[in-house]
Formats: sequence, C-alpha cells, structure tokens
Amino acid sequence: MKGNIIVGQSGGPTAVINSSLAGVFKTAMDRGFNKVYGMRYGIQGLLDEKYVDLSDYIKNELDIEILKRTPSAFLGTCRYKLPAIHENQEIYIKIFDILEKLNIECFIYIGGNDSMDTIKKLSDYALLTGKPQRFLGVPKTIDNDLALTDHTPGYGSAAKYIATSVKEVIRDGNGFSYKKQLVTIIEIMGRNAGWLTGAAALAKGEDCEGVDLIYLPEVPFDIEAFLSKVRELLSRKNTVFIAISEGIRLADGTYVSQAGGGSDYVDAFGHKQLTGSATYLANLISREMGCKTRAVEFSSLQRSASHIASRVDINEAFMVGGAAVKAADEGDSGRMVVIDRVSDDPYQSATGIYDVHKIANGEKLVPRSWISEDGTNVTQDFVDYVRPLIQGDDPCILVGGLPRHLHLPADED
Amino acid sequence: MKGNIIVGQSGGPTAVINSSLAGVFKTAMDRGFNKVYGMRYGIQGLLDEKYVDLSDYIKNELDIEILKRTPSAFLGTCRYKLPAIHENQEIYIKIFDILEKLNIECFIYIGGNDSMDTIKKLSDYALLTGKPQRFLGVPKTIDNDLALTDHTPGYGSAAKYIATSVKEVIRDGNGFSYKKQLVTIIEIMGRNAGWLTGAAALAKGEDCEGVDLIYLPEVPFDIEAFLSKVRELLSRKNTVFIAISEGIRLADGTYVSQAGGGSDYVDAFGHKQLTGSATYLANLISREMGCKTRAVEFSSLQRSASHIASRVDINEAFMVGGAAVKAADEGDSGRMVVIDRVSDDPYQSATGIYDVHKIANGEKLVPRSWISEDGTNVTQDFVDYVRPLIQGDDPCILVGGLPRHLHLPADED
Repeated sequence: MKGNIIVGQSGGPTAVINSSLAGVFKTAMDRGFNKVYGMRYGIQGLLDEKYVDLSDYIKNELDIEILKRTPSAFLGTCRYKLPAIHENQEIYIKIFDILEKLNIECFIYIGGNDSMDTIKKLSDYALLTGKPQRFLGVPKTIDNDLALTDHTPGYGSAAKYIATSVKEVIRDGNGFSYKKQLVTIIEIMGRNAGWLTGAAALAKGEDCEGVDLIYLPEVPFDIEAFLSKVRELLSRKNTVFIAISEGIRLADGTYVSQAGGGSDYVDAFGHKQLTGSATYLANLISREMGCKTRAVEFSSLQRSASHIASRVDINEAFMVGGAAVKAADEGDSGRMVVIDRVSDDPYQSATGIYDVHKIANGEKLVPRSWISEDGTNVTQDFVDYVRPLIQGDDPCILVGGLPRHLHLPADED
Repeated sequence: MKGNIIVGQSGGPTAVINSSLAGVFKTAMDRGFNKVYGMRYGIQGLLDEKYVDLSDYIKNELDIEILKRTPSAFLGTCRYKLPAIHENQEIYIKIFDILEKLNIECFIYIGGNDSMDTIKKLSDYALLTGKPQRFLGVPKTIDNDLALTDHTPGYGSAAKYIATSVKEVIRDGNGFSYKKQLVTIIEIMGRNAGWLTGAAALAKGEDCEGVDLIYLPEVPFDIEAFLSKVRELLSRKNTVFIAISEGIRLADGTYVSQAGGGSDYVDAFGHKQLTGSATYLANLISREMGCKTRAVEFSSLQRSASHIASRVDINEAFMVGGAAVKAADEGDSGRMVVIDRVSDDPYQSATGIYDVHKIANGEKLVPRSWISEDGTNVTQDFVDYVRPLIQGDDPCILVGGLPRHLHLPADED
C-alpha cells in the first residue's frame, strides 16, 4: 500500500494556484496515495506541525471545480527561506522527522523562484542523508519570471485581468474626452520583469485604441524623455493612457517610486516592496502640463481576480499539479515541472520536467528584442507570445450573486 | 410617419449605462421611430452639433448584445450644467433649433441627479415656449443616490464588483496571515451616500469572513474611536479588513482625505474630487501600531467593470431605457423612469414614472436605521435590500481572450 503525500503553497498567490492544488489532489487520489496532506502556510506552518487532511475539505467533484476557481492560496502561504544545510541542520532534521511521522513519500511545493530553492535544499538534504522522500516543484507566479518553462501558471490569468481592466479604464477615460485632457497612468506589478506590464498591450484591438506608452523595468526610465513623449501625445489627442511597471528605475538604478517618496518595506527575501510610481508621475505631469491626471493601481487584484481567470491558465495549472505527482510517484526528485509550448497556432502545451538546480533563483526577463527600440512599447512577438495564454474562461459558480470559493478558516497560532 | 428620437448619456458612467442605450434603441426601432440619433458627449456635444445615427453602429441583434456588455458611455459623456432659463435663453434657443433641424420628437437623457436637472430645464423651457418635443430621463448612477426609485441601474453591478473584489482581497490577505499582522483598508466610491461602501458587507458568507468594519459617509468619522477598534481587533486576529467610503468626514465636516493632504480638484458641479483616505488611515495605523498595512482603491473599475456586471442590473437598465421611449412616445414629458420593487422574495421589479421636478438634485442617503448603532457596519436590512440586485451574470463575449465591446472612436474636436 502506498504511503502519503503532502503539498504546500508558497510565495505570492495567483488566481489559479488552487487549480494546481486541485490537480495534485486529484492525481494523488487517482494514483492510490493513502492520504493527501496540505501544509498550512507552506514550510513555515509545517515546521509548527500545521497541516490538514485535504479529504476533509475536498469531498467531491464539485469541490474540485470550486477549488480550481478559488483565488489566493487555499492552504495559506508564506515567504520563508530555508537556511543553507550547513548553517542549520536542526531545521532539516525537524522537517524530516515530521515527514516520517506522517509517512510522507512525496512532497510537492507550489511556488516561484524562492519556493524552488526550498525544493532544491530539501532534495539535496534527502540525497546527502539517504532519505527516501521525493521533492517536486510546481511552478506558480504571476510574474512569469521562472527560467526554463515557456511561461508560469498564474501569468495568463493576471495578464487577462490586466488587459480586461485596461480596456475598461480606457473606455472610462475616453468617455470624458470631450474638450478635456486626461492622462491616466496605470501601475502594474512586476519588480524586475515586465511580463505583466507588457500584457497591457493586449487591450489594443478592433474595439480599443489601447495604451499609448508601456514602460517595462528592463529598460532604464528617463523622466525627461517620458515627459516629452506625453507632451507630444497631448498636442494631438485628449486622452493618454500609460502602463508602467511598479519596478521602473532611472539609469542610476533608483526606483521612480522612490523619487516619489514611496515605501521602503523590505520582505524576508530582501525584495523591496514598491508603491507609488504612478502617483508620482501623475502628479509630475499635472504640475508640468496642468492637465487632469489619474493614477490607477491594480493592487492585489492582479493576483487574486479568479473571477476573470483564463481557462487555458486554469487547465495548465491543474495539469502541472498532476504532472508533479506523477513524476514523484515514478521516482523523480529535486525537479520542477515546466510547461513546454508544443505549438503556437493552434496553441498546444505539454508538461516537461527539469532539474530544480537549474531553475532556482534565476529570473527570466522580457527579451530586449520584444521591447520597441525606444523602450516605450512591446513588439508583436510579445503579444503573440501572451495572447494564447489568456484564452477562454471558466464561468464562476455564483452563490448569492458572488463567485463561490472553497474555504479553509485561518489558523493564526 | 414618426419623426426621430435622440438619446444622450451624461455624468459618471456605469457598467450597464449602455444596456439602457440598447433598450432605448431597440424600443425606438420597434415603435417605428424613423431615426435614433445619439448625442456625442451629452448635451455639451449636442451644442456643437455632434451626434451620430445609431443605426450606423448597431446593425444587428449581436451588436445589441455586445452594447449591453460594453462599459462606460458608448456615446461619450459630459458633466455640463445647463444655466437657468432666465440666465441664458440663447443656449436653449440653440438646443431647440438643433432638435428641430433633426426632426426630434423625443429627447432621452441617461444620467444621475445632475442629468435630471437637464431634463427638468429642457421640459420646462418646452412647456413655457410651446415646443412639442418630449423630454424623458433614464436613471443611472453607481451611487444609488436618486430619490423615488427603489435603486438605480448601475448600482447592482458596482455592488457586485465591489463584493467580488472584496472577497478576493480578503482571501489574498488571509493567505499570508500566519504569524504576521496585516490591516487592509479598501476605499470605495460614494461622496455622500454609502450605498457602494455598504456593499462590501455582501462579501461575508459561508466561504468568507467578510470585512471587520464598514464606515459610511452618513455617520461622522471619529479617528480615535477608529484606532481603538483596530487595536482591539489586532489583539485577537492577524488580519483586519476595513471598507471606507471616499467621503468619510470628521464631526466638523473635514474630509478624512484632506487630513491626509488629498486632492482638492472640484468638478463643474462644485463636487470635490476625493482621493487618499485609505492611504492616510493605513499610514496612521502603521505608525501607531507598527503593523503592515495596505490601502486598496477600486478606482474607476467600480463603474466600468462590465466583465462582472449583474444580470439583474443589465436587464433592468435595458428595461428602463425602453420604458422611457414608450412613455415619451405616449406623450409624457419632464419625467424620469424609476424602478419599483414589486416583491422582495422572489425579487421582482417593474418600471414606474415620476415628475422630474421631484427628483432632481435630491440625494438619497442610506437610512440611519440600516447602519449599526456604533456606525461601523450595515444591518441585515441593508444586505437584504442589495442582495437581489447583484444576482446572475451575462457571460462576456470573449474575442482574442478579452471581453468584446461596441466601439465608437473618440470625437475630440
């Protein structure tokens, strides 16, 4: 008889991170694992022996469908970096004691770059100490900055939310465009990689003029050049729409948001928490050009708006979850499932698998060749890459008029 | 043979304002009007003789369906206040000359309080001068602050967007709740009336703990009482979610946003444009209590997110548009169509009609009895009133992965 499997979620959530959890659960049950445990709040909660038996919450096929449409980590998440093995062996001993006590054969971790670092360290430790557990990573991040995978689950839904909301913001602004000038600056997540900000380009089409300018963090931001672009646009049209990444930086590396006195909060991985570039630039334009401006931030809805998730993304997230269980069950360890693009047109994808040592901590940026020469837009190649990932929807299951989610009450000890 | 009809949109748009336009168009065609003209940018554009023949853009039943799902004023909108008749007769002479030139029999204006003022003045002028045109108002505002109608088209969809997004923001925040404290303040539109902010209460249910505190502009805001409520909540839970109206004011009438140095922009009707109360309070809590805070503004998406519009709202908006044409065609003038709630359970509604003199410029606030005694929540009566209005959805028509809209290019002269 097979033993048990445990799954955790880590890092910033996505609209489809629970579709991967549903994929893990379903494949694990189908392949005859005895119990599927879920870590509360990732490895941080596991260290405090916080876990649940997922069968207590996912009781039938309808629960699986609702879980696939539930945003933000169902199990709770954490930003917790394991120490290097030589720095703190006790923590590894403690984790493996817990895994042995729970009769865990496979450990599945759904996360981004930082989470793959956890898979790498745990599988290294198991190898070094002859432990039998297998450790598999499931990619997840709205940022799409993981190497070796064509794209990450969560990115397509965030891109769809951004493009949809950008269309709506443009319509709203244009409705007031008569004899009035308005500059709208939309700030989009993405600290170093411009994948999300570039998705604003998708708004352009037969029914929408799209945004006028797009600034990614991959290209140094020049405030003077920016202001003269805006001035030129205002000389021939009444509404100007600009998408910027939260991470745009001046040539000397200073964040534009810091020029505006933004927050300096630093997370557990040393990442600066940014805010306020759009507000800073909107105030600057208002001061310099005297026109009305508006700063829009999509905030955490970018990663949690499952009500407009992409069906391609939901299905791929489910698929990579299941593929990780299959790989672990067949003996793989220290690896991450990836998505390979099998065909562009018609779009087709399949899972692949890579050594996690090749993946962890390497950030995949938007190639310079997919950004226009003057750094104010993305190219058609970029759009062609993203478009297939936002296709289709999985209609919400409405209860009382609102999308129903699968719910696990908070464990706040 | 019948003459022509003209329709305009005015004031802040809603997710379903074009469903009313579709209702006007369809009923006008069905009742045998010759042409249906659309004013560009409301009465302001009409004064410059900016109008379109709607048949050039709405060519078939599919276009009507797409128009119903298109957010923000399809025709463009304005905030333009007509002078009193005795102040400036020329402007009235000009408008009626244009109407006569276009052989207009009925003039339909889709708007809120300020727009009903336009209907009142134009119908008064027609009555005084013996002009034959009829003037009918179609209610529209996300603010739900129009008197005499049970609710306004646009409110249900905004409430549904707010409640859905609040659920998603709560899930996102709770996912990180382990051993960390986070206070999230969500700022919601509504200058004087708390109808939209109160809709945050709908998030609470079997699958969501809901927000902890709700502050409407109807009740004076006490910063000290607020801080001690937050302190008390943080002593027993890790995440606190608070919904506030952009219009909350201290007892002396000062906007909380002004305490925070918010913008002082004043629109054509003398309304202050507010921003920044959530940011101000989030910074205050962070300073006083040392915990992480987050300010979320739903910005213009509250009135333009047609991708999650309520089906009840879409249908009612369509219904009031058609009812206005019917009333005008049957000889009514100087009136506004309203929605009467025929039954609570099952929810049923029908159109009624009122003298616009009784409606214009009267703001309907949330009754004090629908706000909890301590002013930090709404009552079950409030929830029971709103819940029927957010029911159902009209699935988006996706093209290229994004909701398709009916589009009229900007006319920026």
